[in-house]
Amino acid sequence: MSDKKTALVISAHAADFVWRCGGAIALHAEMGYNVTVACLSFGERGESARLWKEGKSLDEVKAIRRGEAEEAAKVLGVHDLVCFDLGDYPLELSRDNKTDLVNLIRKVQPSFMLSHSQYDPYNTDHMYTTQVALECRMIAQAWGHNPGEKVLGAPQLYLFEPHQTEQMGWKPDTFLDITPVWEKKRAAMEHMNGQVHLWDYYTRVAQQRANHFKRNSGGMSGGRDCKYAEGFQSIFPRTVDEL
Amino acid sequence: MSDKKTALVISAHAADFVWRCGGAIALHAEMGYNVTVACLSFGERGESARLWKEGKSLDEVKAIRRGEAEEAAKVLGVHDLVCFDLGDYPLELSRDNKTDLVNLIRKVQPSFMLSHSQYDPYNTDHMYTTQVALECRMIAQAWGHNPGEKVLGAPQLYLFEPHQTEQMGWKPDTFLDITPVWEKKRAAMEHMNGQVHLWDYYTRVAQQRANHFKRNSGGMSGGRDCKYAEGFQSIFPRTVDEL
Amino acid sequence: MSDKKTALVISAHAADFVWRCGGAIALHAEMGYNVTVACLSFGERGESARLWKEGKSLDEVKAIRRGEAEEAAKVLGVHDLVCFDLGDYPLELSRDNKTDLVNLIRKVQPSFMLSHSQYDPYNTDHMYTTQVALECRMIAQAWGHNPGEKVLGAPQLYLFEPHQTEQMGWKPDTFLDITPVWEKKRAAMEHMNGQVHLWDYYTRVAQQRANHFKRNSGGMSGGRDCKYAEGFQSIFPRTVDEL
Amino acid sequence: MSDKKTALVISAHAADFVWRCGGAIALHAEMGYNVTVACLSFGERGESARLWKEGKSLDEVKAIRRGEAEEAAKVLGVHDLVCFDLGDYPLELSRDNKTDLVNLIRKVQPSFMLSHSQYDPYNTDHMYTTQVALECRMIAQAWGHNPGEKVLGAPQLYLFEPHQTEQMGWKPDTFLDITPVWEKKRAAMEHMNGQVHLWDYYTRVAQQRANHFKRNSGGMSGGRDCKYAEGFQSIFPRTVDEL
Amino acid sequence: MSDKKTALVISAHAADFVWRCGGAIALHAEMGYNVTVACLSFGERGESARLWKEGKSLDEVKAIRRGEAEEAAKVLGVHDLVCFDLGDYPLELSRDNKTDLVNLIRKVQPSFMLSHSQYDPYNTDHMYTTQVALECRMIAQAWGHNPGEKVLGAPQLYLFEPHQTEQMGWKPDTFLDITPVWEKKRAAMEHMNGQVHLWDYYTRVAQQRANHFKRNSGGMSGGRDCKYAEGFQSIFPRTVDEL
Amino acid sequence: MSDKKTALVISAHAADFVWRCGGAIALHAEMGYNVTVACLSFGERGESARLWKEGKSLDEVKAIRRGEAEEAAKVLGVHDLVCFDLGDYPLELSRDNKTDLVNLIRKVQPSFMLSHSQYDPYNTDHMYTTQVALECRMIAQAWGHNPGEKVLGAPQLYLFEPHQTEQMGWKPDTFLDITPVWEKKRAAMEHMNGQVHLWDYYTRVAQQRANHFKRNSGGMSGGRDCKYAEGFQSIFPRTVDEL
Repeated sequence: MSDKKTALVISAHAADFVWRCGGAIALHAEMGYNVTVACLSFGERGESARLWKEGKSLDEVKAIRRGEAEEAAKVLGVHDLVCFDLGDYPLELSRDNKTDLVNLIRKVQPSFMLSHSQYDPYNTDHMYTTQVALECRMIAQAWGHNPGEKVLGAPQLYLFEPHQTEQMGWKPDTFLDITPVWEKKRAAMEHMNGQVHLWDYYTRVAQQRANHFKRNSGGMSGGRDCKYAEGFQSIFPRTVDEL
Repeated sequence: MSDKKTALVISAHAADFVWRCGGAIALHAEMGYNVTVACLSFGERGESARLWKEGKSLDEVKAIRRGEAEEAAKVLGVHDLVCFDLGDYPLELSRDNKTDLVNLIRKVQPSFMLSHSQYDPYNTDHMYTTQVALECRMIAQAWGHNPGEKVLGAPQLYLFEPHQTEQMGWKPDTFLDITPVWEKKRAAMEHMNGQVHLWDYYTRVAQQRANHFKRNSGGMSGGRDCKYAEGFQSIFPRTVDEL
Repeated sequence: MSDKKTALVISAHAADFVWRCGGAIALHAEMGYNVTVACLSFGERGESARLWKEGKSLDEVKAIRRGEAEEAAKVLGVHDLVCFDLGDYPLELSRDNKTDLVNLIRKVQPSFMLSHSQYDPYNTDHMYTTQVALECRMIAQAWGHNPGEKVLGAPQLYLFEPHQTEQMGWKPDTFLDITPVWEKKRAAMEHMNGQVHLWDYYTRVAQQRANHFKRNSGGMSGGRDCKYAEGFQSIFPRTVDEL
Repeated sequence: MSDKKTALVISAHAADFVWRCGGAIALHAEMGYNVTVACLSFGERGESARLWKEGKSLDEVKAIRRGEAEEAAKVLGVHDLVCFDLGDYPLELSRDNKTDLVNLIRKVQPSFMLSHSQYDPYNTDHMYTTQVALECRMIAQAWGHNPGEKVLGAPQLYLFEPHQTEQMGWKPDTFLDITPVWEKKRAAMEHMNGQVHLWDYYTRVAQQRANHFKRNSGGMSGGRDCKYAEGFQSIFPRTVDEL
Repeated sequence: MSDKKTALVISAHAADFVWRCGGAIALHAEMGYNVTVACLSFGERGESARLWKEGKSLDEVKAIRRGEAEEAAKVLGVHDLVCFDLGDYPLELSRDNKTDLVNLIRKVQPSFMLSHSQYDPYNTDHMYTTQVALECRMIAQAWGHNPGEKVLGAPQLYLFEPHQTEQMGWKPDTFLDITPVWEKKRAAMEHMNGQVHLWDYYTRVAQQRANHFKRNSGGMSGGRDCKYAEGFQSIFPRTVDEL
Repeated sequence: MSDKKTALVISAHAADFVWRCGGAIALHAEMGYNVTVACLSFGERGESARLWKEGKSLDEVKAIRRGEAEEAAKVLGVHDLVCFDLGDYPLELSRDNKTDLVNLIRKVQPSFMLSHSQYDPYNTDHMYTTQVALECRMIAQAWGHNPGEKVLGAPQLYLFEPHQTEQMGWKPDTFLDITPVWEKKRAAMEHMNGQVHLWDYYTRVAQQRANHFKRNSGGMSGGRDCKYAEGFQSIFPRTVDEL
């Protein structure tokens, strides 16, 4: 374990980490964080409509999606892309799969974690992933799990932006300015060839969040300029020395 | 207007700023903030039971409560204690009173504001105060209110800890370590002679919040040591450059 | 002040106390409680459609509604029906009106209070009444309000059943068996001649709540038999010596 | 009263009806509805920063804002733009002002109404407006209010999209395709010269809502194509003959 | 697949579809919809108390409940009653069971779906069923699930009325007039011989919902007459061309 | 089955029943209740950090924790401590484990049950336990589960106090005065040697809840004196004959 700061993204499907927190990944990578992305599935069945319409086989779809994820990860500066390849629609983790995730959490010792919203009636894989993230975070904190290993501290779990935020009961409490790394996020998105219509969608999301960043940093009297931002909801309270 | 950082507390009754955020006041004062406290009333009717039982007159009760608030403010390092003297149980602000509060907000130009929880069925003065705080914050931001004055930016409004938190739907998202200034908070509380039973109550609150500080800063693997803390709920999202 | 136990109903319009808690009133009256009903208005404008269609004048409508309320109160065994006659649609209380209500609360010293749900987009008079009830309850508790008078303790505020419960976010936590006094409630309802269609509506409400009473007192293994019940939501926690 | 279908928008400030439901207005106007817009203020103090920075006087600001609102209304096909000119930041309605609004509601007899979200900590004028809208809707329904007039039925109250939806607890349950009238909405927005930065912001809002329209009309299997949409939250349940 | 419109009910126990949406079934059947009912269990253990008290065996209970469900389905005009026979108290679906349900959803291609409330502390089978319904709906939409099959669109999922609605956090947003088919619903209910006490209970529910239908379609100025109605809560937003 | 009143606590880990409802147990034991405690695990992995740091083996940790639980149970007057020994972090119940719990519930026939809060992002074992408690309570009520056995009635499920109440969305509606048995609770806590820092923490919790007891039993006019209390949230409504 190096002395570098670290972060861990737990993504249900291969592209989620790109749309939803690609900016946070690139920004923290530039700041020197080692960012690990756990991709629980490739989103091969549920989020690759175009490939299936083209008649690709399951193996082909997975290979293509893996390739895209790897390209996107490279662009974003991901330190380690861990593909669990557990299948999607539905995504299900066995006890062993969960133990693998616990082991990864312990190995990474993240300063903060990122995952999905807690409710998503459109996509039960998403809310299931967050439930698993909370369970595995808890196990990683237990002194009696693989005694002798370094236990996990209390990293924040940030919930990144879902599609149709209001339907998910997701309320962002943190806006992150990703303007400095925007080109990387856009480039990473453009590697996701099966979901071209989302490139502009998530570009607009970033622009709207930038407006919110500006408003919340200064209101009508200005606010700090910001062209692209991402929003996050925190599960746990912060501990601070200054308000 | 100096270059010092500033904060503004809006307190329904004379003692609220002591119990609920005395630590935050003292800590930020020590850090060099100018902290202004707006005391909308002395809590003379509703929070001075002992004095009334002793047969004091209204003027006597108010004078005593004012004196206690001033002593407490001095101990905490309050820069400016502004007593609006608007009466309590119920507290009501006329349009002019609100304009005075807007003017104060503009004069202070706070980096952050502090007030009550948004719901309190035990004490409607408390929730009314927060409603007024939001309204006046909005007016202070308007370019057309007293054009030419410096308009307000977008300071966070932190809601400090109410009595019986769960009944108020109050959920802290920020814990502040007030250990370095604990003696000041305790001393300030001990100036509130009409509510002696609350000295130990709010000492225990600080100890419990310290436990939460520790847990949220490190969980079972430690967490930063902390002996006294205060909790706050944010109304607005934060804008950050690092998660 | 006698040694009898007392209760206070705060009803926005003349008929609300009949439909929504007529059973509770009659039952507690039979148990020896002195039940006072504060009728803030007669519901003359908003809940007397039939009378207006018949061409009655405002004074006539009010007189008829007052008469009905008095008849209903008599049947239910109301100890004191206090008609504030403040107008409805909208109902508004001046500071003096509120002081009158505070004085009534202090005079009655109720063991428990009853009023409307906290949200009602169909009828803003209803939610306003509950807001006023909480404010006046607080003032009645203040030692500095009319010093020397007996201050109020901490009576529960039960929210009685609104029309279209789910739209009001009202969730009953207490079901009261009113079978022994059902005939009185039905008779009282039948005095409300302007709203005949509600006689059967609120009879069915009582029958449904009886089913809920039975289920919650015993589930599928029986439960105590009950033919008519009323539901209430509590604002404040209970204090008990046995769970 | 003609036989035409009608709608009523209650807008706190002059521009709200443009950004938030300009598409709904234009679309229903094209369908033959008479759409009335009640502008309670011009947003002169709080939403005209550019004009104040230019040194305009209050009267000038109001005149300019009125002009913009009239131009926008014309483009959208508004049947009647009613400017209440009540002032903003804060907006406050006297009993007489409310009566005027009740009279307008009765005159229009709207099939549906549109107003703001029920919570908005950034802008208390907005949530106040919705509270007033509910109160006035209720009074307009009362047979005893100006007896002899045609009383109001039970029109839906749709809450249009606030800025920063998630912070307002606003959850859309209805998406309206405004593609056919998009050019009109864009043109109307371009009349709001004081808030140029919002033209693109609300264009992107419409594009994002179009994506949601498409998803909710057909999901991954297609969905109806839609380029621009608006979202609304309903206060009241619908009554239907087919699901 | 014919051109007829279709609907799919997912019912945890044999009788749920009768009490909770029997009217919707009969009404849409009369309108020409093919309505399929998936009965996941017969409610043999948990909802057949009378039969067990009579000493029936498990097989007998199941046979009787199946018979009742079939009779009720026939009366209501159900197109296809699919009994999964998975057991109840608790109901649990294996991956294969879920795949069967996905296949049924795809076969039916419903215009809308109906299932239970999302929360039910009295009956965990109910909330589990809705969770499964959401998961299977999602899988049925995936292009990679059985590639080549017609994927599902985005049908609404309506939550039908639970017992003790307020305890389940269920809030109806849609009332359906079932007066034209009331006799069929009553007849279907009368086939459920093990729960005779519910015949009148759900008749009263329908009468109360009719009152709500009337109020929401016209308020105090009338509203459309309606003798029996059912209420539903929508999970997803609607997409419309007119408000 | 004797005629004694009974209660059942379902505790995820060995110490939960001590911290969270030790007072309720001791108090009801003194009143003559037979209180059974189901300990689903010993909290060996997740709540025994000190023992692991000392290098104990799993068997040693479990034996020590079992011993502590037994000592604490003895002090509290627990009638029957049933250790399920199912493992923790994560706790998982197979169908057979759940059947064992159902059998225990039926054997005990509790007047009321106690378990964890419904949400706990820090500890997924806790919320899982409550979910299981509701499922097993439901099965125990089913006439078709082991026909011939006495079925369960409808006991209240009280949720005892979690750590960091506000983060769990837990809201107490019932405060129990445990002053008479305080020494027993403190003594029981002092048997939990692995979590010494919690002895004072939960002593302060009891003192704070006593303040709430006093306030809610009498407000500023007194309230019943109380030195130690515990708080509980009810899942189900109460059925009463007097408000």
